[in-house]
Amino acid sequence: MTASPASSASSSPASLDVDPVFALHRGGKLEVRSTIPVRDAGDLSLAYTPGVAKVCTAIADTPSLVNDYTWVSNVVAVVSDGTAVLGLGDIGPAAAMPVMEGKALLFKEFAGVDAVPICLDCTEVDALVETVVRLAPSFGGINLEDISAPRCFEVEDRLRELLDIPVFHDDQHGTAIVVLAALTNAARLTGRTLGDLRAVVAGAGASGVAVTRILLEAGIGDIAVADSKGMIHSGRDDLNPVKSALARDTNRAGHTGSTEQALAGADVFVGLSGSTVSEEAIASMAPDSIVFALSNPTPEVAPSVAARHARVVATGRSDFPNQINNVLAFPGVFRGALDVRATAITENMKVAAATALAAVVGDDLAADYVIPSPFDERVAPAVTAAVAEQARKDGVARVNG
Amino acid sequence: MTASPASSASSSPASLDVDPVFALHRGGKLEVRSTIPVRDAGDLSLAYTPGVAKVCTAIADTPSLVNDYTWVSNVVAVVSDGTAVLGLGDIGPAAAMPVMEGKALLFKEFAGVDAVPICLDCTEVDALVETVVRLAPSFGGINLEDISAPRCFEVEDRLRELLDIPVFHDDQHGTAIVVLAALTNAARLTGRTLGDLRAVVAGAGASGVAVTRILLEAGIGDIAVADSKGMIHSGRDDLNPVKSALARDTNRAGHTGSTEQALAGADVFVGLSGSTVSEEAIASMAPDSIVFALSNPTPEVAPSVAARHARVVATGRSDFPNQINNVLAFPGVFRGALDVRATAITENMKVAAATALAAVVGDDLAADYVIPSPFDERVAPAVTAAVAEQARKDGVARVNG
Repeated sequence: MTASPASSASSSPASLDVDPVFALHRGGKLEVRSTIPVRDAGDLSLAYTPGVAKVCTAIADTPSLVNDYTWVSNVVAVVSDGTAVLGLGDIGPAAAMPVMEGKALLFKEFAGVDAVPICLDCTEVDALVETVVRLAPSFGGINLEDISAPRCFEVEDRLRELLDIPVFHDDQHGTAIVVLAALTNAARLTGRTLGDLRAVVAGAGASGVAVTRILLEAGIGDIAVADSKGMIHSGRDDLNPVKSALARDTNRAGHTGSTEQALAGADVFVGLSGSTVSEEAIASMAPDSIVFALSNPTPEVAPSVAARHARVVATGRSDFPNQINNVLAFPGVFRGALDVRATAITENMKVAAATALAAVVGDDLAADYVIPSPFDERVAPAVTAAVAEQARKDGVARVNG
Repeated sequence: MTASPASSASSSPASLDVDPVFALHRGGKLEVRSTIPVRDAGDLSLAYTPGVAKVCTAIADTPSLVNDYTWVSNVVAVVSDGTAVLGLGDIGPAAAMPVMEGKALLFKEFAGVDAVPICLDCTEVDALVETVVRLAPSFGGINLEDISAPRCFEVEDRLRELLDIPVFHDDQHGTAIVVLAALTNAARLTGRTLGDLRAVVAGAGASGVAVTRILLEAGIGDIAVADSKGMIHSGRDDLNPVKSALARDTNRAGHTGSTEQALAGADVFVGLSGSTVSEEAIASMAPDSIVFALSNPTPEVAPSVAARHARVVATGRSDFPNQINNVLAFPGVFRGALDVRATAITENMKVAAATALAAVVGDDLAADYVIPSPFDERVAPAVTAAVAEQARKDGVARVNG
């Protein structure tokens, strides 16, 4: 077979390529390959016409066969509208592509899931939902990515309602799973359970809301959330529906001021805000405090500063211990869900993923090791198995896997 | 890296796999792979956060960089709504997937083009157009496939208008290019040019219309088209707009009866209809007649029967000489268009592809060799070069390639 690659380098600003990041990205990071041979007319007649017609007919007669005889049941669409990309904000679908390609690459490398980056040129909730529904026959799952809050909540809710394949907004649930795992271990290290802890979350975007929800689900003692205007409480009249729901369900202690005020005596700080928190505020937390300063690239408080006062410190960065990285969750979550052809990813499946992830640490638990490394090869299989098992228990598995 | 493949065979009717077609298709025919290494945190920090943010920012500032630093400029969406799949008709998007996967595989094998099968759960023209427009930032080109006529014409026309990347309905133009190439060579074999020929086309669907249009463009002497009701002429009052246009532009001889009647004295028969033509009708054609019986899997007339009367016989089948197969065209057409980042595929580019394809046969021209084999390694590079050159001439090339 002849395969003549593109040779269009002539047009591009090759000067950027002195930076290893750009050199690595030249031509993109993904390719689509055949998994079967096409050497001659015989191969072609099996893989394409006329042979393929038999497979089409079989699927038309028995729709579930699409999962056996196409790649659909192993493919996830990584869907973004480019409105909340990394810390960069609304940079649009084209500029979001390098992140979605990176995500797709991680799906394959960490869990053998084929993933296709789909950056959409629309931002209305109705349009996003409608488009993903139309795309759905081509995919075994939908990973929503970098869609800004609060639209992301409605997009996900409606897609979960409309589709019978897993829909998972990774900015929400990937982060939530890893935070829950790390916090479970941090509590264990200090002889406590989640129920013993009072937490303050800075940030009420996609990840802040989802982290709060999963910690509530897992039985956190008390939790309060701040947005850019301060603590969310039922006395505020500037809250969108998602934040109003948070005001009802959180902050039993009734904090009404700033994040830093609420931190006095708190056990846990989770930063998902891009803001900063002073050393004094960290110092004011309860003994054996736990600080997850997760904003990237600049944590809410420098980990070296936080470590002067906190028992456990985690960040989103690879150059400090306890990296809270979504790649610990999403590959195994989708692998497990796809293996059993789950119709959905339930709340229980997310908690099961967190429990399995936390358990990987096992007896090696230490203040600088509350969460495994992204390159720990035990992680994806453990999460996969837990998610698949919970899917069966929850009655959302279509096959045994 | 751990990659645990799906192990869901338990649920599926493995008994089908005694057929080698099903055995080959198990699990699908494609995968998405990384083209770069991800071995450690250092690799991850370049390919994903934090490094990737630089690439996103650069694209946000200079949108054309998306072509240099993502895979977009090498990826084609193979888009179908499953309404006209092979000879099977409207079998829906899921059942169409094996064909679209096969097409994607051929794009890669024959021309190094990455292609993603996208089967859409919508059939309205407006919905199809809107969805593809929303998807467009993720792709360097759009290959429409197996969308039923006459909707396919409007879908393609509107997308060509709305998008600045190549849009190509392969059922139309892929077939048209290969037929033009084969017919040019068949005419040359018999010392004639296209202008010397009177042709009858059976079939006024996507391929019949496109073949007719490209032959008109290339200067065919006369051409008339039949649909299931007989020859299309301006006296008929049951024609859709596309057929009405054909009635205006074709059939100067004024045939009003059946395909078989029109064949008396004709030089060329092109069958794209799924119907049958009698031996008597073939025998009634002019001397040195040319018969392209292209319906699959059953040609309009058996090639052995046609050969009793015709000088040149071609089919769509791999088990007879002169196989008219779209794979001779679409990989090189898109490779050439992508290499120069063409904003469109012009009519000239299609004719250039046909000319280049015909030229591959060269001095080896013979009655049983008017078109190269799909596995002739000279084909894709020849088509690629011709399409890219014509794009530059037509002013639709964004880079030199």
